[in-house]
Amino acid sequence: MNNRKENFYKAYREIHNLMEAQQVLEWDQQVMMPVKGNDQRAGSLSVLAKIAHEKMTSPSMEEVIREFESGADDDWDRANLREAKRFFDRQRKIPSALIAEKSRACAMAQSAWEKAKPASDFQAFLPSLDRVISITREIAALGNPEEPYDFLLDDYELGMTVRELDPLFESLKQRIREMVKKYSRTGSDADKVLGGTVPRDIQEKIGRFFLAEMGLDMEAGRLDVSAHPFTSGTMNDVRLTTRYREDFLPTSLFGVLHEGGHALYEQGLDPEHFRDPAGQACSLGIHESQSRFWENLIGRSRAFWGKYHPMILSETGGAFAGTTAEDFYRAVNSVRASFIRVEADEVTYNLHIILRYEIEKGLIRGEIRTADLPEIWNAKFSDLFGIEPPSHNLGVMQDVHWSVGLIGYFPTYSLGNLYSAQIARAMQKELGGLDELISAGRLTEVKNYMREKVHRHGKLFPPRDLIRMITGSPPSAEPFLEYLSCKYDPLFA
Amino acid sequence: MNNRKENFYKAYREIHNLMEAQQVLEWDQQVMMPVKGNDQRAGSLSVLAKIAHEKMTSPSMEEVIREFESGADDDWDRANLREAKRFFDRQRKIPSALIAEKSRACAMAQSAWEKAKPASDFQAFLPSLDRVISITREIAALGNPEEPYDFLLDDYELGMTVRELDPLFESLKQRIREMVKKYSRTGSDADKVLGGTVPRDIQEKIGRFFLAEMGLDMEAGRLDVSAHPFTSGTMNDVRLTTRYREDFLPTSLFGVLHEGGHALYEQGLDPEHFRDPAGQACSLGIHESQSRFWENLIGRSRAFWGKYHPMILSETGGAFAGTTAEDFYRAVNSVRASFIRVEADEVTYNLHIILRYEIEKGLIRGEIRTADLPEIWNAKFSDLFGIEPPSHNLGVMQDVHWSVGLIGYFPTYSLGNLYSAQIARAMQKELGGLDELISAGRLTEVKNYMREKVHRHGKLFPPRDLIRMITGSPPSAEPFLEYLSCKYDPLFA
Repeated sequence: MNNRKENFYKAYREIHNLMEAQQVLEWDQQVMMPVKGNDQRAGSLSVLAKIAHEKMTSPSMEEVIREFESGADDDWDRANLREAKRFFDRQRKIPSALIAEKSRACAMAQSAWEKAKPASDFQAFLPSLDRVISITREIAALGNPEEPYDFLLDDYELGMTVRELDPLFESLKQRIREMVKKYSRTGSDADKVLGGTVPRDIQEKIGRFFLAEMGLDMEAGRLDVSAHPFTSGTMNDVRLTTRYREDFLPTSLFGVLHEGGHALYEQGLDPEHFRDPAGQACSLGIHESQSRFWENLIGRSRAFWGKYHPMILSETGGAFAGTTAEDFYRAVNSVRASFIRVEADEVTYNLHIILRYEIEKGLIRGEIRTADLPEIWNAKFSDLFGIEPPSHNLGVMQDVHWSVGLIGYFPTYSLGNLYSAQIARAMQKELGGLDELISAGRLTEVKNYMREKVHRHGKLFPPRDLIRMITGSPPSAEPFLEYLSCKYDPLFA
Repeated sequence: MNNRKENFYKAYREIHNLMEAQQVLEWDQQVMMPVKGNDQRAGSLSVLAKIAHEKMTSPSMEEVIREFESGADDDWDRANLREAKRFFDRQRKIPSALIAEKSRACAMAQSAWEKAKPASDFQAFLPSLDRVISITREIAALGNPEEPYDFLLDDYELGMTVRELDPLFESLKQRIREMVKKYSRTGSDADKVLGGTVPRDIQEKIGRFFLAEMGLDMEAGRLDVSAHPFTSGTMNDVRLTTRYREDFLPTSLFGVLHEGGHALYEQGLDPEHFRDPAGQACSLGIHESQSRFWENLIGRSRAFWGKYHPMILSETGGAFAGTTAEDFYRAVNSVRASFIRVEADEVTYNLHIILRYEIEKGLIRGEIRTADLPEIWNAKFSDLFGIEPPSHNLGVMQDVHWSVGLIGYFPTYSLGNLYSAQIARAMQKELGGLDELISAGRLTEVKNYMREKVHRHGKLFPPRDLIRMITGSPPSAEPFLEYLSCKYDPLFA
């Protein structure tokens, strides 16, 4: 390895190691930390964020990158250089002090959210949330002044813009509102089928069973509990969380399948490159394609329930006595307007995203004040879904994202839905029908396909190119909408 | 606050925040991390150690300290300045690269120890242990060339030297070997009394009960499980661990009392100063005085068993049916040669420390080779205790300390024993007999005394001065030896 190359990789591995430290501290904060520890943790996270940012934007890093331009000599080198430059340029735009301030504000806001959410007390959450929004606005203003939200979007989905998303989401919105009307008739049956009581430890056992079926390596991972499920870490230390409702198994079951999809992606990165700028996951949209694939295209399929319904029946004692696989299949696919995004069905889900996208654009453009969020949320929700949240924890306060500064992030969830349907279509051309794969217990083939086609490439290709390589087409809503019609027309039309 | 003062405190709080991050990562490594995560964690810990060391020894820190010399204007300022200078001088002697190397070597050695210990496979542990020893030797050589071990001692117990410890430990060794002969007759009865089976969750419940009795704030702390019990963190995020043997309640019971004593100390520091150089715990010896006090002077007292035996009987079902408080009191105080330090009685315990002290001196002076450790351990053990460990996990491999680079640390355990007896004598003059306090359920008064006399002062005074302030005497073995005779003469002589 030449010197320029060595310096480059050494510098980035150091930054990677720092970021892994941050991730563990953030995981701990949500999963393990005693309630009074928040101020101290905010201090630690803030100093780590500051140091990482200083290292990434230092003159010596600029020099290291510049030197590497004449030292890069293979595809990975060139991709690493490209990502390093992109990241350097982006980060240098943001002053260190602002990064540290954001980190501190988010730690405080997250804690405030956790305390205020159970009581739906938006006023208690407002001051710290407003601080996060206002810092985020300052950061967004460093990008395209015409459309500050683009700077946030681009951080999660390389190259994505409002100009591209607006028409995509507008058409999705129309088609999906039609589908909601067409399919949402059988709301109340689902509760009867799914409403059996399953103790937490049994739910955990079922969750771990499916993680094993998916091929997740639990010697390189953990499953825990947190208020809002998430996955963090990478490669040999990947941690997912879920939450348990004893009266509603699907919360943990689909939660684990979803986070398990994220976790498989992290374990499937290239072990030689996962610490390098281009070795990490391609984009959040691609990441979400993996989680939504396992949650929906696998977990909400007829074949899945045909195969696993007997196991679930026997593990849960009499909780679901008298139900059939088909009952479950219909119940977990019932379509109806509901308040909680993470528990929404596949059809209405994207409306939840579009709601947040429209609000975030307004917040960042300065058209919406933080204090007005509850009112605006409820009005827009009512317009989209025809119902209004009875309390803020079923409305504007339901997600952790804003409190931790993730603004511009929600749209990647819908992009993930679109990508997952595109990738599934390509996969089935190669491996045969998904239903057959599931019924035959060939889930590791599915995992291996994803590893081969998606995971191991990291950011070697931008998301748009990766999707085109796998599917032969650019990102598109058509396979997703077709997947929905093919699934729901025979069910409920 | 003047500028010089502000710069000083800001710089040190940043370092403190970094060190808290390191502590959480280390705790996680021992308590939560998936087994395959070790390499990645070693990378994170290594970069954090490097950054903290760079910050502590930078020219700008030297400038900050120098400037503060004319900005310090109260007792805390002056103590903070003194500690900062001492630490700066010590750290600057150690090259950054050596610190990072040590951190990485320790992460690897700890992992190797964890894997090799169950099989007593010293050869598997040897290469990584030898690396730690050899780096520690390099570090020790930066201090007093006549007695390199002093540089390690001083890190844990300010100002302590081999010259002072040698005679102290030599006299302890003689007196204690006499006591062992005099008292150790009733070994086998203890197993009969203490050997009932208590499920882990009941043991945990009992442990949490005692932490509450001691006055530990569990909203600012956690209790978990690890291979070797320890306490980490400070103030509002203090975490202790224990381990459970279902066939031997005392392992977790005394473990929790011991670590609970450490945890109370950390929660009792001055909230205004705990992030500053002099605001942290005085020394490891003083720290250990707190843990040993709760474990032994409280937990192994007749009054403790008189008060809590009924609760333990009722919580543990029939496990200890037919036993009396006095049976327990005698059983938990039985004196006999045994292999495991952390389970040793109060009398033999110090021999375990003296063994390690003598070996460490030899390792650091280069008189003992790492490869010869098993042989030397067994020979010395046999000489001191009259028995030889049947396997290395009951011998040279039992402690985590060497694998994590804690060399020069063991002597503080015996100093803690001496200090605890000195402090107890002073406390009883003020609050009345310890037996009365325990019987009357007045443990929070004991906690408050410790908080007032020990915890809140941090490093405001060096350990020797603190002990003199509290007890009117310098550190001394006499109160401890007297405590032992008064307790054991009526029991077993």
